[in-house]
Amino acid sequence: MVSSPVVNTYPLSSYTFGTKEPKMEKDTSVADRLARMKVNYMKEGMRTSVEAILLVQEHNHPHILLLQIGNTFCKLPGGRLKPGENEIEGLKRKLTSKLGANSPALVPDWQIGECVAIWWRPNFETIMYPYCPPHITKPKECKKLFLVHLSEREYFAVPKNLKLLVVPLFELYDNVQRYGPVISTIPQQLSRFRFNMIST
Amino acid sequence: MVSSPVVNTYPLSSYTFGTKEPKMEKDTSVADRLARMKVNYMKEGMRTSVEAILLVQEHNHPHILLLQIGNTFCKLPGGRLKPGENEIEGLKRKLTSKLGANSPALVPDWQIGECVAIWWRPNFETIMYPYCPPHITKPKECKKLFLVHLSEREYFAVPKNLKLLVVPLFELYDNVQRYGPVISTIPQQLSRFRFNMIST
Repeated sequence: MVSSPVVNTYPLSSYTFGTKEPKMEKDTSVADRLARMKVNYMKEGMRTSVEAILLVQEHNHPHILLLQIGNTFCKLPGGRLKPGENEIEGLKRKLTSKLGANSPALVPDWQIGECVAIWWRPNFETIMYPYCPPHITKPKECKKLFLVHLSEREYFAVPKNLKLLVVPLFELYDNVQRYGPVISTIPQQLSRFRFNMIST
Repeated sequence: MVSSPVVNTYPLSSYTFGTKEPKMEKDTSVADRLARMKVNYMKEGMRTSVEAILLVQEHNHPHILLLQIGNTFCKLPGGRLKPGENEIEGLKRKLTSKLGANSPALVPDWQIGECVAIWWRPNFETIMYPYCPPHITKPKECKKLFLVHLSEREYFAVPKNLKLLVVPLFELYDNVQRYGPVISTIPQQLSRFRFNMIST
């Protein structure tokens, strides 16, 4: 209860990055995205999405992996669960789709760790909250962020239309303008962990 | 691993609030406080402070207890550990000093739960970070926030110079101007918990 859980982090240099075919976004605008969300909600009810915090270290400071689409928009690897899909299995499926090599033997054995944050979308709008607001009985989306424990060596295949960013916690902190409310408060959610920075 | 830990929260109305003698602040200005911190650091090394997140519910939404000093400044109940003091025991001591009745039989049996956040003060300045910044080898303070599980009924004695506030998570969220960086991101740190709102 007293000691913080420990997370092993390995140097960025111990990972290999390649590319693979593009993974196009399903929507080309925010309006399209919210409209598709509404259609899916009518069919399937509340959307559950799962996203991964993948950690590496550089200069003894934790960094997380983000996918950049276009020039500015960043997101965590992950995505929407199928109706009834298990969270852990769904996140593994999404990670393999976003970052796994096409050759199954090269795909990391994703070790999904603790849920560190849950965000709620009360309406078909972009704004989300880290709680289900009072009087909202039918939230439209629940997004869960999980720590993913990487092994010492992995191969990542990055879709050609995306850019993989390796961002230090100190760059995310207090930077809601650049990274939005979900990603910019990841440093606070990780603060209770002790990072065991392994140099190889 | 999948399901969030559950936190029982009881209605505010199930708790009783009284008053006790004032607990004056040791410092009358921020400059005094930082100066005293420096003197203590020379004698005892890095300060460790522990603070409590005490939760109640109103209208089915979690609220936390804050102590207000003067007209605007709010803080979590807690304080500085003595050199070598155990975190859990130290937090219990501080909670009793800040919120316990003078009669020992009325003091809550504080159930200290998980550490939800750790903040670091790199220099003798007010700014803190949710990580130890790179190149800082001698941080001046480490502040740990713990969930405290309240029983269904408790008596709190509030020092006469302080005001006890009961603040909903939606009021804290994104409100760094009013509550500062540590308290305003408590909603994000609590988002992974499932609150079992008990009506009595």
